[in-house]
Amino acid sequence: MGVDEEKIVAAKKAAELVDDGMVIGLGTGSTIEFFIKEVGERIKREEIEIWCVPSSYQSHMLAAENGFFITDLFQVGELDACIDGADQVDSELNCIKGKGGALLREKIIAQASEKVYIIVDSRKLSEKLSKSVPIEVLPYAYGSVVKKIERIGGKVMLRESKTKIGPCITDNGNFILDVDFGILENPSELERELNGIAGVIENGIFPSKLISAVIVGGKDEKAKILKKES
Amino acid sequence: MGVDEEKIVAAKKAAELVDDGMVIGLGTGSTIEFFIKEVGERIKREEIEIWCVPSSYQSHMLAAENGFFITDLFQVGELDACIDGADQVDSELNCIKGKGGALLREKIIAQASEKVYIIVDSRKLSEKLSKSVPIEVLPYAYGSVVKKIERIGGKVMLRESKTKIGPCITDNGNFILDVDFGILENPSELERELNGIAGVIENGIFPSKLISAVIVGGKDEKAKILKKES
Repeated sequence: MGVDEEKIVAAKKAAELVDDGMVIGLGTGSTIEFFIKEVGERIKREEIEIWCVPSSYQSHMLAAENGFFITDLFQVGELDACIDGADQVDSELNCIKGKGGALLREKIIAQASEKVYIIVDSRKLSEKLSKSVPIEVLPYAYGSVVKKIERIGGKVMLRESKTKIGPCITDNGNFILDVDFGILENPSELERELNGIAGVIENGIFPSKLISAVIVGGKDEKAKILKKES
Repeated sequence: MGVDEEKIVAAKKAAELVDDGMVIGLGTGSTIEFFIKEVGERIKREEIEIWCVPSSYQSHMLAAENGFFITDLFQVGELDACIDGADQVDSELNCIKGKGGALLREKIIAQASEKVYIIVDSRKLSEKLSKSVPIEVLPYAYGSVVKKIERIGGKVMLRESKTKIGPCITDNGNFILDVDFGILENPSELERELNGIAGVIENGIFPSKLISAVIVGGKDEKAKILKKES
C-alpha cells in the first residue's frame, strides 16, 4: 500500500472526529492537506460549520478554499481539538515535528487544544525518536544558540532555502536549525533543555503528554488508533 | 543621594571591568546609557578598542555614537562579559528585567557571556522579587498564552504603546505582557514553567545562576559588589 493511500486512510478517520460547530487547530503538511480536503467534503455534503485556527499560510489558504471558517487565538483561546501530522512517532507517542517548518504555531495550537490527534502513515512509526529535531531560532541569536546546542551534543545544520539565497525563513521570520541528536533517550527532558536556551523560539519535540492519540493509516481503509497506556 | 547619581556610580565601577579588545554584551536602559558613556570616555581617553553586541536599537545607536565597534552573534558566539541593568534584584541575586522591553535579546547575550554583571541603584534591591514579570509573546499565540498564564496564577496586562495605537511591539516584532505573580517564591521554577509555554518567546526572570555579580551604586562614589555565596 502506498504512503499517500495510508495518509488518506488516516485523514479520513480523523475527519470523522470533527463535529458541526467545532473549533479545531489545523497542523501543516501533506497528511493535513488530505485531512482538510476530507473535512471540506463533509462541510459541502453535510452543510456543517467548522471553525479553524491554521498553523501556517499553507493550511490557512487551503482551509479557506475548502469552506472552513478561519478564526484565531484572539477570538478563541482554547480549541476543541487539534489535528496534525508528524515526522516521527516513538512507541510512547512522543513526536518529532517541523520538517514543514511550522513547528512553533503547531505547538501553540496543540497546547491550546483539549485533544491532540496526530495522523501519520505507518512509515513514521519508530521504537525511538532518531530524526533531526527542527529548532526555530531568532536570527539575532544564531551563533550563540549553535554553540549551546553543540555543547549538549547536537550536530547542527542551518536549513537553507531552495527558492532564495540563504537560510529558509519561517512564517514568523526566524531560522530553522535541523539538529541531529542521535537517538533521543529522553525526549521530554531534551525539549525542556532546549526551551531554556534564550533565542530558541521553539523546538520540534512534542512530548507524549501533549498527544491524545496517534491515528496510523493502514490497509483496507483501516486506521489504527494508538493511545498511551495510563 | 539621587537615583541617577547611584546609577552613575555603578556604571563607573562596571566601566573599570572593561579591557582593551574585549567583546561585551550591552544591555538596555537608563543605567546602561550611563555605562556606555563611561566606556566611551575610556575609548577616547585611553585609545582602547571595545567590541560589543547590543541588545536593542537604543544601545546599538548609543554604542556607535560612543566609539564602540559593533559586532554580532554570527561573528562571535561567546562574549567576554555582559553588562546590564535590572528592574528588581532579590537577596539571592535573581533578577526581573524587561521594563525596557529588551528582555529577549538581553537574555540571549547574558547566556552567551562568560561573566554577567548587573548594575543598579539601591532602590532595585528587594528581599524577594515582587514586580511584574515582562513576557515576550508571539502575537499569534496571544489568547492561548494569556489563558495558560492565568491558569498558573498570573494577572496579565498587555503592554500598550504610548506612541501608536494598540500594543507595544518589541524590536523583534512581538507583544509584551506584564504579569503580576505576587511575590516570586521560586523564580527559577517559574522561569522554566513559562519557557514551556509555546508562544512565550522569553520571560524577564533572570535566575541567579546566570548572574556573576550585582554592582549597586552608593554614596561617596562607592559601589557595593554583591556576589552569590558559594
